[in-house]
Amino acid sequence: MRVWRFGLLLIGAPVLSGCVAAALPVLAGATVLRNQFSEGQDAPRRAEPTAQPGSAVRAEDLVGREFRTEDGQVVRIIGAGQLPPPDGAVPRAATAPAAARPAEVAVPGGMQFLYGSAEAAAISIQTYQALWRYVDDRVLDRLAGQDVASVVLASDATLERMTFVPCAGKPLAVVFDVDETVLLNTGYEADDARRGTGFDPDRWSRWEATGAGQVEAVPGAVETIEAMRRREVAVIFNSNRASANAEGTAAALRAAGLGEAVHGDTLWLKGDAPGGSAKDARRWAIAERYCVVAMVGDQLGDFSDLFNSGDAPPRIRRNLAAQTMIAPMWGTGWFLLPNPVYGAGVTGGYEEIFPPNLQWADPAEE
Amino acid sequence: MRVWRFGLLLIGAPVLSGCVAAALPVLAGATVLRNQFSEGQDAPRRAEPTAQPGSAVRAEDLVGREFRTEDGQVVRIIGAGQLPPPDGAVPRAATAPAAARPAEVAVPGGMQFLYGSAEAAAISIQTYQALWRYVDDRVLDRLAGQDVASVVLASDATLERMTFVPCAGKPLAVVFDVDETVLLNTGYEADDARRGTGFDPDRWSRWEATGAGQVEAVPGAVETIEAMRRREVAVIFNSNRASANAEGTAAALRAAGLGEAVHGDTLWLKGDAPGGSAKDARRWAIAERYCVVAMVGDQLGDFSDLFNSGDAPPRIRRNLAAQTMIAPMWGTGWFLLPNPVYGAGVTGGYEEIFPPNLQWADPAEE
Repeated sequence: MRVWRFGLLLIGAPVLSGCVAAALPVLAGATVLRNQFSEGQDAPRRAEPTAQPGSAVRAEDLVGREFRTEDGQVVRIIGAGQLPPPDGAVPRAATAPAAARPAEVAVPGGMQFLYGSAEAAAISIQTYQALWRYVDDRVLDRLAGQDVASVVLASDATLERMTFVPCAGKPLAVVFDVDETVLLNTGYEADDARRGTGFDPDRWSRWEATGAGQVEAVPGAVETIEAMRRREVAVIFNSNRASANAEGTAAALRAAGLGEAVHGDTLWLKGDAPGGSAKDARRWAIAERYCVVAMVGDQLGDFSDLFNSGDAPPRIRRNLAAQTMIAPMWGTGWFLLPNPVYGAGVTGGYEEIFPPNLQWADPAEE
Repeated sequence: MRVWRFGLLLIGAPVLSGCVAAALPVLAGATVLRNQFSEGQDAPRRAEPTAQPGSAVRAEDLVGREFRTEDGQVVRIIGAGQLPPPDGAVPRAATAPAAARPAEVAVPGGMQFLYGSAEAAAISIQTYQALWRYVDDRVLDRLAGQDVASVVLASDATLERMTFVPCAGKPLAVVFDVDETVLLNTGYEADDARRGTGFDPDRWSRWEATGAGQVEAVPGAVETIEAMRRREVAVIFNSNRASANAEGTAAALRAAGLGEAVHGDTLWLKGDAPGGSAKDARRWAIAERYCVVAMVGDQLGDFSDLFNSGDAPPRIRRNLAAQTMIAPMWGTGWFLLPNPVYGAGVTGGYEEIFPPNLQWADPAEE
């Protein structure tokens, strides 16, 4: 238990005073940009605590110490006082849910994994590191005068014949989905788990409008997005949140440390272009102005509406993404974050998920 | 529906005759090694069908056609007949489970995601692509005479002070966990979902011994592992499957198209070194002979036993992996595959997953 003591101290007070401002590099690729923090111009937008393991280590003892990462980069801890709140962040009140909270609510495995596990956080960081390396390479290509390709499928593309919109010298951009891609909707899902009554669009709409105090950033997203902006790569959000709730969504992004999103410019929502929940029209509108070098999401629809053009059973859809010309795109311009909580990835009956030829018979029962 | 017809045709007969031997590059990085298949020496070890979308496309019509990937690589479909079975593969019989199958078994969301979804498959491919690029870079470093670092923590390392075992010219290797890292235990989980009675170690042991016919490879694993072996990077498995079931595990790896694993050489199991389920002793034994440039798993314990030295609550453990010096390792030598079905990532009570300050109150109920 000794090893966890310091972490336990911090977890109770996520964005409160007294936490150590350890400037640890979450992303090796972005570290060079983030070796030092001061409390002025370059203060971190996100005052997330750092659980620093080690027996009998106090926050104050870490100040001034240097750490060397495996690849030789040096990081120094320079602050251990109260951090300024993130610019414009909505203060997080320890609000009690309106309905009584059952003494013990069973949390579904997908939620345990996505909102609580070290493994999901590690996968997110790993994915954001891969994204950063990919985008940084494209920035270098552009600086070297080489052609840079868009990863937005053209309007005449099919999944068999993939063609992409032209880039032609437009400024570079990365297009992100919002929910469970850059933002964890921890507060909504906490409420959902407690109720156990399933998705409610009206409640979701109220969440969009008022939930900014109970969101978290997906691990790795803040550092990657900051690094992109410093590299002058435009960060564009394309979400199926409602256009009417643009203000609440911008507030949630800001509160999570993801910076400013401007509706109609860097924030595209349902209703901003034809097609309803389909995102292609918005992607094409964005691609008119930008050379989109990467897209990031948690659902296939965050990359192309072509995936949603039929009612394919889960394993057909799986083969479509994994065993066709599409497959090389994953990790090469298209980047997916795990979401075992909701969406198209969490559907399918028994025989659809477990085909008969893959069902095992326990020999002890034969 | 039109678009899916061809996929539907194939899904019923995963490793059977008549499927198209489409040599599609799952991994762009490995494509140069895999541009052509013939049915002789270079025949693919895995006869996985390819769901090739496109209206009215028949398998035979694809033969001889060329596809160009986004990065300009050309892939040609050259076979549309019966493929030879994978070497030594256990034939897959369409066995009926011993107990009667309920007409409708509700599949937990984590299983739907991991065994059925396109999104999980895409994440696996993305992760294996990142792994391949990382390892290929280390191979190039070694060829250029540069130092290559091990990613196995030394015995005196802590999570605060990470030191690694020396490499000193040893042959390069990658260490993989087995279950839900390279191998999907689809058959066992199908049985588990049907019963709904939770994990049974005796049944799992029988699965290890007899399940080779009902496993699948994690998407991307086969191609990446083949590419590594061609690059003369040793592929070592370090699993907590039982030493006594080594033969069954080797058969399962073979059946999934992952090639040969030799117990005590390239296959390390529980009991092969002191420590029980702890894997450090086995990692250090492997690192005596090899320069381990990457490790791949689905649990933190696949990277270091230090993560399992306490009984940290989920979110402390999460901070430990995501907000310490450990964080830059994810995607930089340490690679994690998603597993929302079992293990340390699928634990935690309501207040552990949803801290009070992140619980939202629906304003409609205030």
